[in-house]
Amino acid sequence: MSTLEQRVEDLARRVRVLEDELAIHRLIVRYGIAADMGDADAAAATFADDGCYDTDVGVMRGRAAVATMLGGERHQSMVGRCAHQIGPAVVQVEGDRATAVGYSRVYLADQGRVGIYRVSTNRWRLERRQGRWIVVERTTRLLGHTEALMPFAGPETAQVP
Amino acid sequence: MSTLEQRVEDLARRVRVLEDELAIHRLIVRYGIAADMGDADAAAATFADDGCYDTDVGVMRGRAAVATMLGGERHQSMVGRCAHQIGPAVVQVEGDRATAVGYSRVYLADQGRVGIYRVSTNRWRLERRQGRWIVVERTTRLLGHTEALMPFAGPETAQVP
Amino acid sequence: MSTLEQRVEDLARRVRVLEDELAIHRLIVRYGIAADMGDADAAAATFADDGCYDTDVGVMRGRAAVATMLGGERHQSMVGRCAHQIGPAVVQVEGDRATAVGYSRVYLADQGRVGIYRVSTNRWRLERRQGRWIVVERTTRLLGHTEALMPFAGPETAQVP
Repeated sequence: MSTLEQRVEDLARRVRVLEDELAIHRLIVRYGIAADMGDADAAAATFADDGCYDTDVGVMRGRAAVATMLGGERHQSMVGRCAHQIGPAVVQVEGDRATAVGYSRVYLADQGRVGIYRVSTNRWRLERRQGRWIVVERTTRLLGHTEALMPFAGPETAQVP
Repeated sequence: MSTLEQRVEDLARRVRVLEDELAIHRLIVRYGIAADMGDADAAAATFADDGCYDTDVGVMRGRAAVATMLGGERHQSMVGRCAHQIGPAVVQVEGDRATAVGYSRVYLADQGRVGIYRVSTNRWRLERRQGRWIVVERTTRLLGHTEALMPFAGPETAQVP
Repeated sequence: MSTLEQRVEDLARRVRVLEDELAIHRLIVRYGIAADMGDADAAAATFADDGCYDTDVGVMRGRAAVATMLGGERHQSMVGRCAHQIGPAVVQVEGDRATAVGYSRVYLADQGRVGIYRVSTNRWRLERRQGRWIVVERTTRLLGHTEALMPFAGPETAQVP
């Protein structure tokens, strides 16, 4: 392979990492928008079939469990007056796997007033499957709980990505 | 055209989409910063000459109308104590057109305290004109109004970008 | 140099600017996450050895001064219940230098409630040193102070980046 061919191949690899990083940013933000539209399926579709959503109030195993939560009365009763705002996150891509860490905030409007309902820390594990990025695991913890920053702890995050 | 030439051309296309996406992120965030600086012209310059800013309290048609609103007493009286924070948004580029959807928040400081003044949903339609991205239409709706998520509805957003 | 070689070289330059912009976004967001983890060294490592952090309550000169502040009792007493959320910012790369402007917010949880503790404007000056981006100067001002938007003023920002 010529030098020029090698340079093009190297560039293609770098471009793919950039595309991956932006795709992951879109994916995690999109969950919040779809959830706020009340579109349980579109929001849950950001999770892998076997994806896991681990929250303070319970662990949802599988995309279907996420869709059930979002389609349920508690979430649907907030649609039209909640805003799940996610990011900016720090995304780190390694081949077909990636992690993201960042904050999310849920705002809730009530009789013309809007307040902060929840501020949380998040860690996402993502994988490229059939050519598209998908959330394999999302761990969310409310700020102010002692475990709030636990998703960021441990050896793999000793170096914050 | 040789295979290598084709690969370079393909890469150039992909790089341009990445540049477009980042340029659009900068553009929509920049509106808020310029508005908060009280620089009505810089903020309005993110809109096309014939751009439209459709808000809960009225529709501004044309860049000049946006500049007039931002130069007016109501907005200028908040300069120095307001923060228009925009994004992260989900940007989707298709050639010379793009859409972005995302949240914005306005914070207001008053006598040393800061509060949330507004949380809104936004949809932007953008176009590349004379080689630069510009907002052709921005639709903003306050959270908590029944139409809050309307900008995200309709067939083109059945798939959240 | 052939035309194709030139095109590849041009592409490589553009890809590097994209990588730079994303690296800078990660860097400035990462400061907040590391600070909230209580990891003073990781957060301070986003600053150059001779970097400067200019805040409303004082100027920290040098990475060590930033680490001392973050390791101090005042900051450490908030760890586990504070969230330093930064961005989205507008990043402008010029060779081995860059600037970013944007907002930051600090949230604080107290007995199960969470509130906004601070909303600030920020300007970062960054440099590429030994191949990695580092903060050379960060100027942060609380919203609502008369100087709040000063970091954005002056000739170099007459055009908002």
